[in-house]
Amino acid sequence: MKPVRVGLIGLGAVGAQVARILVEEGATSLAARAGAPLRLVKAAVRDISKTRQFAPDPSMLTTDPFEVVNSPEVDIVVELIGGENPAFDLAIGAARKRKGFVTANKLLLALRGAEVFEAFEKCGARLGYEASVAGAIPILRAIRESFVGDTLERVQGIVNGTGNYILSRMTDEGIPFDDVLKDAQRLGYAEADPTLDVEGIDSAHKIAILAALAFETIVDFSDVYTEGITRITPEDVESARQLGYRIKLLGIASKVDGAISLRVHPAMLPERSFMANVNGPFNAVETQGKNAGVNTLVGRGAGGGPTATATLSDIISIARDITSGGAPRMAPLGAPISGLGKLPVIPMDELRTEYYLRFTVPDRPGVLAQIAGALGDNGISIASMIQRERMENQPVSVVLMTHDAVEADMKKALAQIEATGICLAPTMIIRIAENGGD
Amino acid sequence: MKPVRVGLIGLGAVGAQVARILVEEGATSLAARAGAPLRLVKAAVRDISKTRQFAPDPSMLTTDPFEVVNSPEVDIVVELIGGENPAFDLAIGAARKRKGFVTANKLLLALRGAEVFEAFEKCGARLGYEASVAGAIPILRAIRESFVGDTLERVQGIVNGTGNYILSRMTDEGIPFDDVLKDAQRLGYAEADPTLDVEGIDSAHKIAILAALAFETIVDFSDVYTEGITRITPEDVESARQLGYRIKLLGIASKVDGAISLRVHPAMLPERSFMANVNGPFNAVETQGKNAGVNTLVGRGAGGGPTATATLSDIISIARDITSGGAPRMAPLGAPISGLGKLPVIPMDELRTEYYLRFTVPDRPGVLAQIAGALGDNGISIASMIQRERMENQPVSVVLMTHDAVEADMKKALAQIEATGICLAPTMIIRIAENGGD
Repeated sequence: MKPVRVGLIGLGAVGAQVARILVEEGATSLAARAGAPLRLVKAAVRDISKTRQFAPDPSMLTTDPFEVVNSPEVDIVVELIGGENPAFDLAIGAARKRKGFVTANKLLLALRGAEVFEAFEKCGARLGYEASVAGAIPILRAIRESFVGDTLERVQGIVNGTGNYILSRMTDEGIPFDDVLKDAQRLGYAEADPTLDVEGIDSAHKIAILAALAFETIVDFSDVYTEGITRITPEDVESARQLGYRIKLLGIASKVDGAISLRVHPAMLPERSFMANVNGPFNAVETQGKNAGVNTLVGRGAGGGPTATATLSDIISIARDITSGGAPRMAPLGAPISGLGKLPVIPMDELRTEYYLRFTVPDRPGVLAQIAGALGDNGISIASMIQRERMENQPVSVVLMTHDAVEADMKKALAQIEATGICLAPTMIIRIAENGGD
Repeated sequence: MKPVRVGLIGLGAVGAQVARILVEEGATSLAARAGAPLRLVKAAVRDISKTRQFAPDPSMLTTDPFEVVNSPEVDIVVELIGGENPAFDLAIGAARKRKGFVTANKLLLALRGAEVFEAFEKCGARLGYEASVAGAIPILRAIRESFVGDTLERVQGIVNGTGNYILSRMTDEGIPFDDVLKDAQRLGYAEADPTLDVEGIDSAHKIAILAALAFETIVDFSDVYTEGITRITPEDVESARQLGYRIKLLGIASKVDGAISLRVHPAMLPERSFMANVNGPFNAVETQGKNAGVNTLVGRGAGGGPTATATLSDIISIARDITSGGAPRMAPLGAPISGLGKLPVIPMDELRTEYYLRFTVPDRPGVLAQIAGALGDNGISIASMIQRERMENQPVSVVLMTHDAVEADMKKALAQIEATGICLAPTMIIRIAENGGD
């Protein structure tokens, strides 16, 4: 059987693993599964002289990624450099040459997914992007192929390993955010500039991709409401625990009456739910389908091995397609993007949820009445309250859990409380997650 | 686009759901995803006059399942009647006619899988069997397509909903097995003859299928060591809890040095592990891969909706293949079965694990010394012990946890203890599960 020839762009932690496995197993076990030998034939890197975890034959190396896309020797292009450019041009170039294209690039697909999907569809080329969301967890294939006969109503998950590592350590050890972040940076779990991870932007990229797939819609990345974890304090973590919850950075995409809600924010999860027990670098994604009910997939969301596994699954899938000789068997998004519109997005103001609130206020009579009054004025009722131990002349924390309330009403209530001048520090708001129903 | 025509065999809880969804969505949303309309054209039932959850057009109905297989109008045959016969002949018949065949029949594939896989492979026909293991949980597709670039070392899971429902209620409510079983039968969660579920045979069917896929081997069903949950008492459940464990019926397939271990038995799981928190009718399957690490998939393991979702995923997958016009893109087992041998099976006697032991003995001095002595004679050391409160002249329970021991040594030790005559009731043995590493 004619080998399927693979060209890699990027030989970092993931790329080196993919290269190694292709070289070591491409002619044996992978060939049996793919229906043809897989052969690494080209690899583009920024610096040819750099020492790597795995070094392919130097004759394969180039510094020009477009050489991989344009080479007549390459059947499948694997893009592992990330970022919008030149990844976008590489993807479009591969589509036009009707090559298979495999990418782990969540930013590219979150920001320019519709264009990329459409290009591959129009050109009749194959696109694999399993590695772009949640590492080894096979969530994209599950949506595109396993829940494809169902109607999905919600997809939510812990899809950022760095954020989850930080929150897990804050929860287990009671250390402040800044200290854990520094430690995570030292250990290589967080980038020097951690913005994408801790501000929820990386999670938002993934939620944009998941929502597009799950709800078969074009998603504008700017429609994803995004809030990070930098303001969470050890006190919030401890209050959550006392109330029977854990705090997680959650990405949520849901569909109600033909409109979708897209959001990333810290959320309180019941301590016995699966999601609450997904710790450290693990990711988890939960789907809710009309017929299948709730499914939860848990695994390693990042790292060379897990991401290489997801990348190889796409390479092998495309190799199987090529070897079987037919046309592409499905559109990149499952259903053709040309037939899809853009579903309306539910504004955050219309969100209805329960809330955790932490006020920092002076320790004097009447303060609680002012808070409760403002909430009541806006139709929000209090479910429970924790008042911290008092220290003379020190501000106190008032921690409240509310019943279901509408976000716009909550904003009004908080503005009203703010206006009384009793808040000595910004008020902390954490939404309660909808339970997965396990 | 030419419609893909589906014929169903069986219109029970699952079949009726599949039929309904095909009729309601086959020309719209499913058509967009499959690349062609899906049309239900035939359905075989035992009794045409029976009232059903969903009744297709009466002109489609037949009482002869072979009419579905032989009809030139049918592209994909969906077998939902279960059992070995006539399901085996229907499968082979479909393969010979090069029709797509989708089945939820775990018994068939556990007992005659190698023959069925080989027939489809030789005939160049497509076989889907996602619904045969763990309902809506997309575990077979995950192994065959998502972890296909990895090397799997272990697959284990809670794959029987009835057994898990019974154990969950025993754990939550402290009720004896027999009482929960009666209740489960009354509620329709357990069959009138519950043997397949409570004796672990159904789980063994699923482990045989999972092992064949994960390790690319021919599996003899008789090689699966099988032990059920009927002997577990509320006392075992309570002792497990005190020791920080939950008892689950676990199916385990693992591979060590080219040999495989296949077993189903009650197992103690650390209370904070994911598996320990999979309750009621939920199933979970955990895979451990060389590169991907541990992945856990949790969802509904049975029921009309979840199993219909899995069945539809196979129908749509085959429809996508047919529509794209190529040859079958992979062998039923992922890699061709013709190239596979039968991996050696590790005898249970060679298993090395920790054990929970409950002895029922007279309450008199020296008894514990006899037990500890016999264990020590066979190189087994005790990790912890619980002695129940004593009641005069009543037998007492001695509960022990051991360190790692070899099953053959454990058998010898237990025989030695038995021989002393101190055991007033059969000794209970529960193995401790290997932790998934979360």
